[in-house]
Amino acid sequence: MAAATPLLKDELDIVIPTIRNLDFLEMWRPFFQPYHLIIVQDGDPSKTIKVPEGFDYELYNRNDINRILGPKASCISFKDSACRCFGYMVSKKKYIYTIDDDCFVAKDPSGKEINALEQHIKNLLCPSTPHFFNTLYDPYREGADFVRGYPFSMREGAPTAVSHGLWLNIPDYDAPTQLVKPHERNTRYVDAVMTIPKGTLFPMCGMNLAFDRELIGPAMYFGLMGDGQPIGRYDDMWAGWCTKVICDHLGLGIKTGLPYIWHSKASNPFVNLKKEYNGIFWQEEIIPFFQAATLPKECKTVQQCYLELSKQVKDKLSKIDPYFTKLGDAMVTWIEAWDELNPTGENLAKLSISNGPAKAAK
Amino acid sequence: MAAATPLLKDELDIVIPTIRNLDFLEMWRPFFQPYHLIIVQDGDPSKTIKVPEGFDYELYNRNDINRILGPKASCISFKDSACRCFGYMVSKKKYIYTIDDDCFVAKDPSGKEINALEQHIKNLLCPSTPHFFNTLYDPYREGADFVRGYPFSMREGAPTAVSHGLWLNIPDYDAPTQLVKPHERNTRYVDAVMTIPKGTLFPMCGMNLAFDRELIGPAMYFGLMGDGQPIGRYDDMWAGWCTKVICDHLGLGIKTGLPYIWHSKASNPFVNLKKEYNGIFWQEEIIPFFQAATLPKECKTVQQCYLELSKQVKDKLSKIDPYFTKLGDAMVTWIEAWDELNPTGENLAKLSISNGPAKAAK
Repeated sequence: MAAATPLLKDELDIVIPTIRNLDFLEMWRPFFQPYHLIIVQDGDPSKTIKVPEGFDYELYNRNDINRILGPKASCISFKDSACRCFGYMVSKKKYIYTIDDDCFVAKDPSGKEINALEQHIKNLLCPSTPHFFNTLYDPYREGADFVRGYPFSMREGAPTAVSHGLWLNIPDYDAPTQLVKPHERNTRYVDAVMTIPKGTLFPMCGMNLAFDRELIGPAMYFGLMGDGQPIGRYDDMWAGWCTKVICDHLGLGIKTGLPYIWHSKASNPFVNLKKEYNGIFWQEEIIPFFQAATLPKECKTVQQCYLELSKQVKDKLSKIDPYFTKLGDAMVTWIEAWDELNPTGENLAKLSISNGPAKAAK
Repeated sequence: MAAATPLLKDELDIVIPTIRNLDFLEMWRPFFQPYHLIIVQDGDPSKTIKVPEGFDYELYNRNDINRILGPKASCISFKDSACRCFGYMVSKKKYIYTIDDDCFVAKDPSGKEINALEQHIKNLLCPSTPHFFNTLYDPYREGADFVRGYPFSMREGAPTAVSHGLWLNIPDYDAPTQLVKPHERNTRYVDAVMTIPKGTLFPMCGMNLAFDRELIGPAMYFGLMGDGQPIGRYDDMWAGWCTKVICDHLGLGIKTGLPYIWHSKASNPFVNLKKEYNGIFWQEEIIPFFQAATLPKECKTVQQCYLELSKQVKDKLSKIDPYFTKLGDAMVTWIEAWDELNPTGENLAKLSISNGPAKAAK
């Protein structure tokens, strides 16, 4: 059951990309109902998505995205769950939780239903430890601390920008692994939260992910995937690589581990292979690129970092495929659109605010 | 119960530093009895240490160490469990497991006694993943694999040089934390093994530690601690910093996590504070030194790496305290002694082998 006063009730939006009726929300009702939902409808905008009664939500389809962003809508993917990042952009809250509509409430080893959102919030509200490894995992959790030999000057930690949750049942495998191990299920509940160390990249999965929009939002661009693009299923990976490089540069932390959700259904490995095909080759060059990427000291905001990264992407990755030139341009468009929808004191004057959501139900 | 044929029975020594009778071995009998023990007696050499019946062991006291190493015995600490590294040096086996004599058999959440040694061997016999983070932890464990987005070219992993196990009950806290949280116990069983990423340092604890002597042995020097030294309780930390830098340079992996042992008794925090006092200050400079340390390409063996590190220690840390000049010299002595006791084809001719163990029981 949700706590009497849910944590960050007015400071967090739940972003859900979907192509179907959101029956999965029934199971999440005790945990999600107090929060506002941003639903990003993927694919055919004429289709009606049913949302269970009693949820507070706004829903955007492709027509809404085109209307709100105009020509800048080109940076938002179509027919791919990468479109979810539009929800990050239109949110006005400090925190985002995003979850896939085939993810259900998991149980901990004692059989208790896991309030995933509550754990994400805990992760985000306490610091990370990216500069030195703590062998007893998150030192800020109850019953844990820094171990002998952990420098005292580093015990304040770094602000946590991202909380990456995991999945019981169907693990997040690529198509080749799905094909080779069709029956493998993740049954291991690892009772840990940990910080991914500075300088280390990780495969960020968008299925069960929370972040601090104010700290890192503009880096959470899910790229160009799906319809008309030569690649799919790398949307969250792209966001993860960019986000990690920028967090390392800005001294922010990324946590992974708890909470688990129950991932109900494996996607079709043949379809996935088709989508991933190029990515499987390209990541062999993209990852060394991000491992070596450095940002100049002058980059002090996420936007500045992201625009600098977009240049490096165009300079260094376009030789792999012309797609990366297009992606580099889309990264710039994304930041322009972000700043338009999220005016700061600086650019507030430039903006005419005429972009209300399409529907606001309840 | 131990398996019918214990893993690596003839390729692994168990090294135990002690000042008391080894009654704790009774509890470990089902797991340790098939293996050979190397007991390093700390403190007064005239005292007799009782070893329970039926164990196969050799025991070295200070007189033995002095006799075997001659003037080079100066590199082995006295009145400190750092003396255990003498056991690493005299072993002729490929693998070492070292454990403190206040560590007992822990139970997993199902109530089953944990065969810590067996898990360490599993950790050492499968690769590590230091170059990219796998969010489902050790991808080589049963029921796990590499997640989507993990580059295929990196899935072979790196050879595992070190397996760092953890502790239930009394956590490995420093004196200030012990003083502040006298009643904190570690009750969280985290069912994970993971690789510490390349470029990240960690606080290595010597209480429950296994390693591959052939891959990394000469880096496992526990420094100058205890009697006559201005510092204690940093022996394993020192070995951990040096080992991690060298593993990163040589492309070797270090794992941490399972197995747990049951750490029975907290040491006296007042005594500990006296020992740690200098280390608490010094680590604030030592850790940035090791974080920045790089080794030249020409260093291809652990010995070469270690001698290079000893120079850097003398050059860059001696300004903290003259102790580091002495320690840098001891690092060189340690390597000389190691090579003398572990002749390779190259230096075999130079050596007259007259250094048998003091006692070889059973």
